[in-house]
Amino acid sequence: MRNFVFYNPTKLVFGKNTIDKIGEYLKKGKIKKVLFLAGGGSIKKNGVYERVVRSLIENDIEKVEVWGVRPNPVLSKVEEAIEVAKKESVEAILAVGGGSVIDSAKAVAAGYYYEGNVWDFYLEKVRPKKALPLYTVLTLSATGTEMNGNTVLTNERTTEKFAFGSIVVYPKVSIVDPEVQFSLPEHQIVNGAVDAISHVMEYYFDGAENTELTDRIDEGIILTLIETTEKLLENPKDYEARANFALSTTLALNGISGLGHKGGDWASHELEHAISALNPEVAHGAGLAVVFPAWMEYVFTKNVEKFAKFGENIFGIKDDNTEEVAKKAIRSLRNWYKKIGAPITLKELNFDYSDIDNLTEIACKHAPFGELVKLEKEDIRKIYEIAYE
Amino acid sequence: MRNFVFYNPTKLVFGKNTIDKIGEYLKKGKIKKVLFLAGGGSIKKNGVYERVVRSLIENDIEKVEVWGVRPNPVLSKVEEAIEVAKKESVEAILAVGGGSVIDSAKAVAAGYYYEGNVWDFYLEKVRPKKALPLYTVLTLSATGTEMNGNTVLTNERTTEKFAFGSIVVYPKVSIVDPEVQFSLPEHQIVNGAVDAISHVMEYYFDGAENTELTDRIDEGIILTLIETTEKLLENPKDYEARANFALSTTLALNGISGLGHKGGDWASHELEHAISALNPEVAHGAGLAVVFPAWMEYVFTKNVEKFAKFGENIFGIKDDNTEEVAKKAIRSLRNWYKKIGAPITLKELNFDYSDIDNLTEIACKHAPFGELVKLEKEDIRKIYEIAYE
Repeated sequence: MRNFVFYNPTKLVFGKNTIDKIGEYLKKGKIKKVLFLAGGGSIKKNGVYERVVRSLIENDIEKVEVWGVRPNPVLSKVEEAIEVAKKESVEAILAVGGGSVIDSAKAVAAGYYYEGNVWDFYLEKVRPKKALPLYTVLTLSATGTEMNGNTVLTNERTTEKFAFGSIVVYPKVSIVDPEVQFSLPEHQIVNGAVDAISHVMEYYFDGAENTELTDRIDEGIILTLIETTEKLLENPKDYEARANFALSTTLALNGISGLGHKGGDWASHELEHAISALNPEVAHGAGLAVVFPAWMEYVFTKNVEKFAKFGENIFGIKDDNTEEVAKKAIRSLRNWYKKIGAPITLKELNFDYSDIDNLTEIACKHAPFGELVKLEKEDIRKIYEIAYE
Repeated sequence: MRNFVFYNPTKLVFGKNTIDKIGEYLKKGKIKKVLFLAGGGSIKKNGVYERVVRSLIENDIEKVEVWGVRPNPVLSKVEEAIEVAKKESVEAILAVGGGSVIDSAKAVAAGYYYEGNVWDFYLEKVRPKKALPLYTVLTLSATGTEMNGNTVLTNERTTEKFAFGSIVVYPKVSIVDPEVQFSLPEHQIVNGAVDAISHVMEYYFDGAENTELTDRIDEGIILTLIETTEKLLENPKDYEARANFALSTTLALNGISGLGHKGGDWASHELEHAISALNPEVAHGAGLAVVFPAWMEYVFTKNVEKFAKFGENIFGIKDDNTEEVAKKAIRSLRNWYKKIGAPITLKELNFDYSDIDNLTEIACKHAPFGELVKLEKEDIRKIYEIAYE
């Protein structure tokens, strides 16, 4: 087990009707005026917007609204929101939405105090020193951003999709009210499941040794995601499945799933970022469903035992031949992704074989990457080829 | 799953040689003078004291020492330390030791700002509003106090052993350096294992439903404790077992193990507190090894399915008859306690049958208690009778 520091100061407020408490929490934090950041308007259809606004009014909290954060969120919207936040002298950011809205809100919170362009944080030119307090109301469980300091953003001008992490952008309070997710379309359940499973696997397969406790926690998260995804596809209003699913996605990336690890592998995430940077229509989860099993196929011989352990404990695979178990594990994961309706090839995402050059180029901007195996250009190309069809 | 708020602001610094960083963390916290609180002197034998002092000197941190916190810590020592802390105007408490030292340090930290007697917090007459910042160096993994806001103390004047919990006494930073535990005697490993397993079981068996993810995490913690305890009794210097053991004890009571639960049952802890209040020579873990299986035997019919799930997932018991599995689970737990050298009867703790009256009287001061079953006086007596031999 590696040495680690675990520090997660986010207050997670979880359960039925917690959404109506957002105003109280802001008031407790002595906040009187927020920048309200949101996406495309689905929160106006499912009642979330109305409930949040009512709670703000009841607690005398003023708001300025910025709408239009889209999936695979972009720099220009963040720049717009920072400008509004500065002009209006807000005291906090209130993000109401899914991972894209919260990731954008983190950039706005840190960008508020920065003279230069916020993209500098993503380029790792400079680290944020300070941020506005961030409050979130999560409406789509998937990325885990509600309880960590990570943010991913796309710069449309350069087709780069980069990330940064900082303690200053951990949300102060995050509200997760599983009931408001009853109306999500199926593909968002599926993408959320794949995303969260991928987060756990990034740690699980990073090559760290003697992480028995963390492995058991990670397997518990993945097993719960598999079980609850199937239940939700049957009955989207199953509250208990929804709650266990939501909690699993949060714990998948709040630090617990990586205790004692090497910080995670993250090669599959890099490979996916190239996919959704090239085609922003591709959901992050969909891209991961395609690319993660391909990565596994390419690298599993470097740690056969761990891939076999995964096969045994997640899919109940038994075989004396460890390599066989590892191979079956990868096949089982892909089959399960297929079963729940996730894409498993680049072709299904409407990429042509010729796009592999482009994907390789974009991904290579950060190469070499990966912890279990440091991937160079040639490795990257081969993984996209495996993922192709 | 029940609604919950999870908020744990302790920074956990975990791993080899982390102990030498305590001075740096205090300095980062702008602390210049601490009350150094410790136990009976074992930290002078194993090098911990010297390393902490060196780190304090290197970071220009002054200290005033108070020694002599004993297992099952007592109010009088806390009162003494509060007086010293006030007189010397320290800026923080630095607890170096096991659960007793850290629990006492929490009382000192909160008592520093309180006009009345600190025992008022334990009597729940008043809640602490403020506390000195608390830094800890853990030398004995067991109670989980290094990452929560709980403290248990005995008032020798009244033979009461009470607890309180508050957000203001969560440690700012806790250092867990598993290597410094290599020299612990066997019975402390055993007591620590029983204590941590009991913490997890208090949640697991509190009657909450639909806690699938938390159940898996809890089972993972217990399985890891069983596995690593056996390894450490074989080889106390097995670092990886030590680290997994230590991390398991921390997660057993930092909030994670009880997510979505009813707050835990805690009847077994009440029953144990009477035991060690009556005989302070009994270690908390030893008392729990005796009383928890007795409680299980008395209440398991109220939630047979859950006790059977425990038997299946922890001890691999298979049987079509659910009640049989539940019974075997309790038997297996007792057998394992016996195997690792924990006591399993009150007799082994040198109690006479006639002491049951006394134990019942003491425990009844807080009765009725328990979440799965609210225990009244007659129930309490019966459980002590089951525990007797």
